[in-house]
Amino acid sequence: MNLIILKDNLREGLNTLERAVAESNTLPILKNILIQTEAGKVKLSATNLEIGVTNLLFGKISEEGSVTVPFQALYSIIVNSDTERINLISSGTTLIVKGENYEAKIQGLNPEEFPIIPKINNETNSIEIDPGSFKSGLSDVSIAAHISEIRPEISGILFDFQIGIIKLVATDSFRLAEKTIDHTKFKTNFNQGFKTIIPLKTIQEIMRIFSDTKPIKIYFDNHQILIKNETTELISRIIEGNYPDYEQIIPKNIETEITVKRENLVNALKLVSTFSSKTNDVRLKITENSKAMELYSINQSLGENNYLIPIKSKGADNKSLSFNWRYLLDGLKAIKTEDIFFGINSNNRPALLKSPESRDYFYILMPIKGD
Amino acid sequence: MNLIILKDNLREGLNTLERAVAESNTLPILKNILIQTEAGKVKLSATNLEIGVTNLLFGKISEEGSVTVPFQALYSIIVNSDTERINLISSGTTLIVKGENYEAKIQGLNPEEFPIIPKINNETNSIEIDPGSFKSGLSDVSIAAHISEIRPEISGILFDFQIGIIKLVATDSFRLAEKTIDHTKFKTNFNQGFKTIIPLKTIQEIMRIFSDTKPIKIYFDNHQILIKNETTELISRIIEGNYPDYEQIIPKNIETEITVKRENLVNALKLVSTFSSKTNDVRLKITENSKAMELYSINQSLGENNYLIPIKSKGADNKSLSFNWRYLLDGLKAIKTEDIFFGINSNNRPALLKSPESRDYFYILMPIKGD
Repeated sequence: MNLIILKDNLREGLNTLERAVAESNTLPILKNILIQTEAGKVKLSATNLEIGVTNLLFGKISEEGSVTVPFQALYSIIVNSDTERINLISSGTTLIVKGENYEAKIQGLNPEEFPIIPKINNETNSIEIDPGSFKSGLSDVSIAAHISEIRPEISGILFDFQIGIIKLVATDSFRLAEKTIDHTKFKTNFNQGFKTIIPLKTIQEIMRIFSDTKPIKIYFDNHQILIKNETTELISRIIEGNYPDYEQIIPKNIETEITVKRENLVNALKLVSTFSSKTNDVRLKITENSKAMELYSINQSLGENNYLIPIKSKGADNKSLSFNWRYLLDGLKAIKTEDIFFGINSNNRPALLKSPESRDYFYILMPIKGD
Repeated sequence: MNLIILKDNLREGLNTLERAVAESNTLPILKNILIQTEAGKVKLSATNLEIGVTNLLFGKISEEGSVTVPFQALYSIIVNSDTERINLISSGTTLIVKGENYEAKIQGLNPEEFPIIPKINNETNSIEIDPGSFKSGLSDVSIAAHISEIRPEISGILFDFQIGIIKLVATDSFRLAEKTIDHTKFKTNFNQGFKTIIPLKTIQEIMRIFSDTKPIKIYFDNHQILIKNETTELISRIIEGNYPDYEQIIPKNIETEITVKRENLVNALKLVSTFSSKTNDVRLKITENSKAMELYSINQSLGENNYLIPIKSKGADNKSLSFNWRYLLDGLKAIKTEDIFFGINSNNRPALLKSPESRDYFYILMPIKGD
């Protein structure tokens, strides 16, 4: 192998692969990346056996070939390099990296030992999607996900593929977020009703490595999911198991419908939480003839505080409920509108947060018992 | 006590005190700050018994008084507060903090229990100094200081007060930095030859809390140092003991005088250090008829690399020495000129880094033995 590549391109390619490189020592070659020439392009691959990522880069190839070297050594050179073009040459299993006045020899391994990144049967199920709304949907629901060893099925995001829409759902059993993405304008090819659970770490990588502009295609079968655009592919295992039957906990009716300025509620929560206890509880109370909400917290050794914010409300008044303020704040951050619809119920039923206008996202949250 | 204060002013005042507040649980009141009205101003004080910091703020005082409350609770409220003006009211040992629609009660302690921050005899020794050059001098030498329990006398910076100049010196026994600050244009009042060692943590606080524009006065006696400007005072213990007789290790003559572009050497060090071992060693070798310097490092399991940079040199050639690249980089960062003077000697004598023009700063560094 002998090729010349722009340093900035190579750095971006390595950034894309970074978290697919294994950190542990179990299998040394998983700390390596594979560099190959393929159809006139330079292909980088990495896998930690949970996910595999490949990235295609432009380069001037004078000799085909492949090499595998430790990611960290090559990355450190490229990040610190002060030359525009990098010359990569393989000599046996060694990679020679040349810049202006600079030369490194990185000891590699036999590229044939590099694990094969699994393929997916592209013909089964596929969907094309707008990367911007897909990524922001993942971001808005993933706040409610939680990695649990006891309940692996909630350690990921449910993708519920339906004709015209995908529902993305996450829950940690205290709160739940659901986003509906319309994809009627794109080509689809799958059986309605296909559901799959994608690990949270995979979701975080999808959000990190895919651009907001290049169209994304998603392929899936019963064991794997593949996300790709024109240069980058990410393949991941899925989480086996059944997602909890979450639809039954979505409140069908709301006892007290509150409209509140998002910024007011966010500021008040941040401030009042100063005195909240380890359970992060802040008490919310409808007061002043349902025209205000009082936020209150107390800490036996530090003190207490309260904040009054104006609201509009409809339905049962005299409500007083406690919430985990961090969870409430997470939901408020995911909804970007000026006003927030905040539907509250009795102590043993979840509250609901959403934008007053839009129907494509909601966040539900259980009160803290004991008030 | 009853007063109104601008939130931004109070926040800045609390920021100034932040690191003078004790973190440990040994004496609970040290986690508090003292708030007092004094001569029409609001005075904040904190001490961890190593240093004490006070800060004077403007405020509209309607009732004199004092109160002491946990720093963290008040700070958290002020950082998150969304109102411009804050009303502080004492009620017994409780502090009531009021903003628009907001009220907190913070449990405090008896202000008479707050430790008295020691005073210094202002008449003994004092010096006025330009804050900008003082702070940049502290920054340039403190890179060579190191907190050592075995050798407390090097866990700080030596202030050597002489007529017209102050020398600031720091060393960790592997390298040493010295900065000379001219203060001939300011008033001074002290005996020539006074030396004192100021703890590194105090130095870091001086750099953090004093502005670059307000003139600084320094007062010192045999036990304490006081730094003050018109609003802020920091008093610190000094380190008792004798500073090492460092002048004998400053090389009097230089065998090989090298001039090199600072940026070239910085870039080359960062790049070549990729393969350096745990001792951070990078080998420097004068080559090509003394017109180039080769930087080289090797790691038995990863590989090796080298970088050639152009230099001008005079004196003995064929030098080959190894340095701790992190220490060398520290010195290069403190010298801001385009070219660097780099004087190297034999293996057992320190090298010297400075700007080719200026005489007010130098950095010396021992080579790593064994080449």
